[in-house]
Amino acid sequence: MKTAITVANRMSSIQPSYIREILSAATAPGIISLAGGLPASELFPISLFDQALASLSLVPEVYQYGETQGYPPLLDYLNDRYEVANGLETMVCNGSQQAIDLIARAFLNPNDSVVMEAPSYLGAIQVFGLAQAKIKTIPQLADGPDLIALETLFGTGRIKLFYAVPDFHNPTGISWSLQHRRRVAALCCRYDVLLIEDAPYRSLRFKGTDLPLVSSFCPERAFLLRSYSKISAPGMRIGTVTAPTVWLNPMITIKQCSDLHTNLPMQAALLFVLKHADFPKHKENIRKQYAARHQKLSAALSDKLTPDCSYNTVNGGMFIWLELPPCDAHEVAMQALREGVAVVPGDVFFLKDHSVAPALRLNFSHTPEDQFIDAIGRLKIALEKVSERAC
Amino acid sequence: MKTAITVANRMSSIQPSYIREILSAATAPGIISLAGGLPASELFPISLFDQALASLSLVPEVYQYGETQGYPPLLDYLNDRYEVANGLETMVCNGSQQAIDLIARAFLNPNDSVVMEAPSYLGAIQVFGLAQAKIKTIPQLADGPDLIALETLFGTGRIKLFYAVPDFHNPTGISWSLQHRRRVAALCCRYDVLLIEDAPYRSLRFKGTDLPLVSSFCPERAFLLRSYSKISAPGMRIGTVTAPTVWLNPMITIKQCSDLHTNLPMQAALLFVLKHADFPKHKENIRKQYAARHQKLSAALSDKLTPDCSYNTVNGGMFIWLELPPCDAHEVAMQALREGVAVVPGDVFFLKDHSVAPALRLNFSHTPEDQFIDAIGRLKIALEKVSERAC
Repeated sequence: MKTAITVANRMSSIQPSYIREILSAATAPGIISLAGGLPASELFPISLFDQALASLSLVPEVYQYGETQGYPPLLDYLNDRYEVANGLETMVCNGSQQAIDLIARAFLNPNDSVVMEAPSYLGAIQVFGLAQAKIKTIPQLADGPDLIALETLFGTGRIKLFYAVPDFHNPTGISWSLQHRRRVAALCCRYDVLLIEDAPYRSLRFKGTDLPLVSSFCPERAFLLRSYSKISAPGMRIGTVTAPTVWLNPMITIKQCSDLHTNLPMQAALLFVLKHADFPKHKENIRKQYAARHQKLSAALSDKLTPDCSYNTVNGGMFIWLELPPCDAHEVAMQALREGVAVVPGDVFFLKDHSVAPALRLNFSHTPEDQFIDAIGRLKIALEKVSERAC
Repeated sequence: MKTAITVANRMSSIQPSYIREILSAATAPGIISLAGGLPASELFPISLFDQALASLSLVPEVYQYGETQGYPPLLDYLNDRYEVANGLETMVCNGSQQAIDLIARAFLNPNDSVVMEAPSYLGAIQVFGLAQAKIKTIPQLADGPDLIALETLFGTGRIKLFYAVPDFHNPTGISWSLQHRRRVAALCCRYDVLLIEDAPYRSLRFKGTDLPLVSSFCPERAFLLRSYSKISAPGMRIGTVTAPTVWLNPMITIKQCSDLHTNLPMQAALLFVLKHADFPKHKENIRKQYAARHQKLSAALSDKLTPDCSYNTVNGGMFIWLELPPCDAHEVAMQALREGVAVVPGDVFFLKDHSVAPALRLNFSHTPEDQFIDAIGRLKIALEKVSERAC
């Protein structure tokens, strides 16, 4: 086979996904996985889905081509439900992942600069890599991004976008304080930077009270990305982006070229589920179960791994960030896999060549809570073996 | 609102879609539309869809995140059904539209050259525009592309991709002869050009016998795009691309960045429908109905518009290409709308500034056949009025 034809240059700027490799190993028999970022399969509202799908015969128009921006009854419902302000509009995407990609394609030329927190969501790092953007990172502190570093970067006048996950961050679980939310919004306005507020975990709060969206303080400069993967189901691939019409329109143009529109039967099914009287109870149950899983995992960590390791307390989401004593976190993850537990080494959430304190991302949403004690026991053995080898 | 931030350069290279404008006018009350490219809504296999959706409770794994390449049982079925050769693989996309976009993103740098027939599918013109490719066109003859023009372009050594719709072309309805199929494949091999064979209408043959796929003569240099929008339903947004593993892999990487994977419940539902004992009968019925519609529209054209206008006979698909006497086809389309019939002027399927003989694309799949006589009567009046004004 001739292979003189080469792929596009952008292919070489995508950060490879180590997670994909570890995830495939994580499904081997006997492995307890804390590695993925999956919601709990057994909590999906299957009976609501069954009713939703049965209702589709009443709206046969969902089988025909539809509008690029989304299924109008779903858009109407969401705009009403979230009290979307005048001048802002919502668009349905194939998960909020597609919204990140559409923003990058609509606004970024190669070498344009984007700011992210470090660590950051790998899927966003990959999108901005694919867009051949220059990714600049700022440290993440306990209550939000390092504002001095952020203002220094914004002050260069070269930043187009700031991508952030202010609620229950992936991978660290950190949530921004109210003060950080206000100040980041003010900086975006002052320095003319567009904010991407990615909020996939926002509905997964199991402790404390919701803080305002960062975008609520700078709606005219923000893309707000919502996911229905965590409270409904990720297989449906439905997320939304809300933004000023002027920013949304180029994204609609690109989505039309890209795939015409998001599948309509799932949009109609999601609308049915969101409107169902039992949906609030379903969300409440997810939160309760995740709270219990978080509590069990924390307890196992306290019991077996402190004080050598330390971890943050989170109030929602799906992840705990475990800081390790000096070691090679990759080696720990590999040894952990041999001991029967899959975890993700923290450095995969940083840009290549970024110097990183050793850490692991632990997921608590997908694994039944009775497995956490075993899982952390295995991790402890892996840590000990790696530490002995290092001596 | 500040708007100092500008969109990406690629936004200015997308050919605008005149069709979108005309389509929104075409839905006004009293208008008969021959303008869209929609399959017949009343022929969707709704009862099969109902059964398919009811069956999803047996496969709850479709609600979880899945594999980027596609739902494995669907991929297995399709590879088996189409006897996909060793070394080739299939991937599921959000309609075959997304496959075109993924190919462009995986293989095209700005200013890379792509060849298309003129006229060509507008959605592909838009994708290659978005990719900032140089689009070169070759004339379309009655039985396929102008091979001399094609070899001349290929001979420059600068062509990376050739995009073609060899079966029941959109907009002209033309199908390539066997000789054209063999020769185009041979040229792609000789000049090291990748062929995109877009085959959305191939299953809509209502007369004659299927000819081999062009890609069957050069499988190692081809992307074969299949659509399920015409024989199942477009709202589901499912298409596939089959290609050598080496060409498919970069597309999978981009799809992972872009939207992780195509929605799984619809993939499972499509699999159910394709395997259902009644599906062959359903396809046969679509063909029979489209044959009848085509016959009625042809009869109305013969009766009312020849010999001033001429049209080609098609053996399948959804479109007739009507050549007009010297006039401004845009003006005819505008006047036709005022008379109550929507049609698409031919020049929207050419690159901007391409000199074009006046023509209209007429769709026969979406409109009940009892409206064709009225529709063509109105078109005749529009033609007469425009011709009078020109005198």
